[in-house]
Amino acid sequence: MQRFRNVAIIGVGLIGGSIGLGLRERRLAERVIGIGRNPVSLAKARRLGCVHEMATSVAEGVAAADLVVVCTPVEQIPALVAEAAEHAPAGAVFTDAGSTKATVVTQTEALLHARYDGMLPFIGSHPIAGSEKSGAEAARGDLFEWRTVVITPTASTDDDVTGAIEHFWRSLKGRVVRMSPARHDEVLARTSHLPHLVASALAAATPADMLPLTAGGWSDATRIAAGDAEMWRQILMANSVQTLKGLDDFERVLAELRRAVEAGDGPRLAEILAEGKSRRDALGS
Amino acid sequence: MQRFRNVAIIGVGLIGGSIGLGLRERRLAERVIGIGRNPVSLAKARRLGCVHEMATSVAEGVAAADLVVVCTPVEQIPALVAEAAEHAPAGAVFTDAGSTKATVVTQTEALLHARYDGMLPFIGSHPIAGSEKSGAEAARGDLFEWRTVVITPTASTDDDVTGAIEHFWRSLKGRVVRMSPARHDEVLARTSHLPHLVASALAAATPADMLPLTAGGWSDATRIAAGDAEMWRQILMANSVQTLKGLDDFERVLAELRRAVEAGDGPRLAEILAEGKSRRDALGS
Repeated sequence: MQRFRNVAIIGVGLIGGSIGLGLRERRLAERVIGIGRNPVSLAKARRLGCVHEMATSVAEGVAAADLVVVCTPVEQIPALVAEAAEHAPAGAVFTDAGSTKATVVTQTEALLHARYDGMLPFIGSHPIAGSEKSGAEAARGDLFEWRTVVITPTASTDDDVTGAIEHFWRSLKGRVVRMSPARHDEVLARTSHLPHLVASALAAATPADMLPLTAGGWSDATRIAAGDAEMWRQILMANSVQTLKGLDDFERVLAELRRAVEAGDGPRLAEILAEGKSRRDALGS
Repeated sequence: MQRFRNVAIIGVGLIGGSIGLGLRERRLAERVIGIGRNPVSLAKARRLGCVHEMATSVAEGVAAADLVVVCTPVEQIPALVAEAAEHAPAGAVFTDAGSTKATVVTQTEALLHARYDGMLPFIGSHPIAGSEKSGAEAARGDLFEWRTVVITPTASTDDDVTGAIEHFWRSLKGRVVRMSPARHDEVLARTSHLPHLVASALAAATPADMLPLTAGGWSDATRIAAGDAEMWRQILMANSVQTLKGLDDFERVLAELRRAVEAGDGPRLAEILAEGKSRRDALGS
């Protein structure tokens, strides 16, 4: 069983911080180094126990790393993996935690092919364990326990890297699922990116003076709209094609509901509501 | 301060059961009688401590009541209030707990005007404390604590009845707000009925085979879709005009989001996401 000695985490927010905490609590790494641009955030992450050391330069932070995990918003991932690959020791492996995979993996692989002959030491990852919260203060060492982590090997991925990263997430108690980057984005568009769009529209469409008369329903239905707007802008733009396909389907069902309400067609309305209920009930609370 | 001696609750599910429990735990009524059609559900409510006694006939159940609260789905409320008024002692007062008010109050008042000269002993109520759960097993004596309860007096409502019912909900620790039935429906369309429609469409539009890859976001955004389909059919049909107005506004914002994603207009997309976030943040978790 491979155990990483020196893990560098670029971007120590909720996800990066939780990886650091998880590695430290389970003694899965000798050193965890947090890398970021903001010294204040880094110092907070260290104070919270997420990392042993910190660095504001990628080159310095990854100098002794055998694993680098990039946990930044998606648009920054490809360039940061490439920069880390330039400075990390030979044999180091790389992954990320981005919420979209097709664009991220394609761009990252294009940059790495310029550096490596043959197979690449990078594989895309997506631990499905986000929250509307952000920042290392929300980090938890058990964030990935029982959560699905998608890894997205491609024809360019070194098999040993796939195995090592699968083992890495399993050691944090994640349930690892392999999927192509394209299939990942198709699924996550429906299960995460479209719901975000819908929740944001619902929140934005609610008149502010009516907020005191909301209850648990509105509060649940819009909770994810509190997520970081810039992070979500990047996710929605990186996965725009699939998200728009999901939106087409959503709007089709919504139009059917509208027609049933407009026509006073009780049986049809009850039928669609029951369909939504059965889908939701299948998940449990 | 008026204290009710004999309270009859028609429909002992989540709301009716919670009223019963709250009254008993706080010793606010001498007798609480649960009325319903299903003896098994009634026996369960009694076993759970929601009511002292049970009756499957309205006439029998309200025979000694000084307060009758109708907690059934909205379409049944007007006829049940009228039936209760026929059999309750003189001086009894009546309210309901329906999620829509305009149709319910108009129809109930029309039926009662045939029985009473002058002002009516009925006022509409809506404790905004629902849940996707239903049934007496989900009832809690503190369900109304700090929750908003809208009461909807009209030109036909006896002032003493308004005062007594306001006191009744306050004794259960609700925050009482007075509003016209029409304004109630306008507000609740946006804060409750439209969110239900949207959550149901989102749940129904998600392919079943993708459910294992949902996480907290989808789960929160669709939670209310697990609500009872028949109860929600009635709510949406009783408040169709206002819900459709809310749907127009929601679709307008969603169309703007679509345009921004389609056009790759990052600044506009971020702007709408930030607007949704600020609305959601204003509420707190």
